[in-house]
Amino acid sequence: MRIFVDMDEVIADTYGAHISLYNSEFQGHLTPENCAGKEVWHMVPEAHQDSVRKHAYRRGFFRDLKPIADSVIILKELAAQHDIYIASAAMQFPNSLEEKSHWLDEHFSFIPWQNRILCGHKHVLNGDVLIDDRSYNLLTFDGRGILFTSPHNINTEGYERADTWLEIGKKLI
Amino acid sequence: MRIFVDMDEVIADTYGAHISLYNSEFQGHLTPENCAGKEVWHMVPEAHQDSVRKHAYRRGFFRDLKPIADSVIILKELAAQHDIYIASAAMQFPNSLEEKSHWLDEHFSFIPWQNRILCGHKHVLNGDVLIDDRSYNLLTFDGRGILFTSPHNINTEGYERADTWLEIGKKLI
Repeated sequence: MRIFVDMDEVIADTYGAHISLYNSEFQGHLTPENCAGKEVWHMVPEAHQDSVRKHAYRRGFFRDLKPIADSVIILKELAAQHDIYIASAAMQFPNSLEEKSHWLDEHFSFIPWQNRILCGHKHVLNGDVLIDDRSYNLLTFDGRGILFTSPHNINTEGYERADTWLEIGKKLI
Repeated sequence: MRIFVDMDEVIADTYGAHISLYNSEFQGHLTPENCAGKEVWHMVPEAHQDSVRKHAYRRGFFRDLKPIADSVIILKELAAQHDIYIASAAMQFPNSLEEKSHWLDEHFSFIPWQNRILCGHKHVLNGDVLIDDRSYNLLTFDGRGILFTSPHNINTEGYERADTWLEIGKKLI
């Protein structure tokens, strides 16, 4: 099978990074739990929203993200059986492109550059499975879509869902 | 129609840049004509080959390329009728990612970030037409492939070919 895997909030913890940057700069007390169902920038006073929305334009933002729990070990197992492609909608942030490439080199070196895709729309992808945290990407993908749970999407209904990478492993290995 | 357009040697003159860098650094006399049928690095003494092969790793290499003749005007016309995606196998050179994005902003600003794809393999693309200078990309693409003539591919046979962007215009507008 050809499986496409999104980066942000699927293998890279951008949500956690937004929270931790915000808390440290504005002495906030956000947690993934108390933000559930919302984007992080929705959860802060209006005067701080612009700052949160601009996190992703900072140099280093995408380079320092933590891998999502169990994503490395399960993707390594999946890669032994299937064609795994990382497919990230990164073109919006030109500063992120090189950082994402180096981040993958560090954490997912078993996925070679030939299997990495940076794109805007996921509907241009031709394959069997897409694992993504954004329902609008799954909606236009011509194959099996799996919604990966992130705090922002917990109320989204109507999609096959995986809460953890261990669940992905059960579904696809 | 959804049309994918390669960057290097289709809309961006990498071949010409290799020649001009080589000539200026080694007092060479290469021209696209006397290199025909070969890669530029094939055409230089063995002691210089490594230098030519490393051009693409230099900062600025992809930022300073000239657009291929008539590519801007014809792609603008095509974009009014079709879904145009730029699809470049850029992941091999992480330094190129941001440069390619800025280069597109400068020369092809009418193609938004949503319609730009950086990938390794072109067979992951799902669409109608692929315009590319590499026959191995056309071979695995599931749609109509058009080989765009570059000095290195003039002897390649067995593919629908366009020598210029004006010819692409006649085929697709």
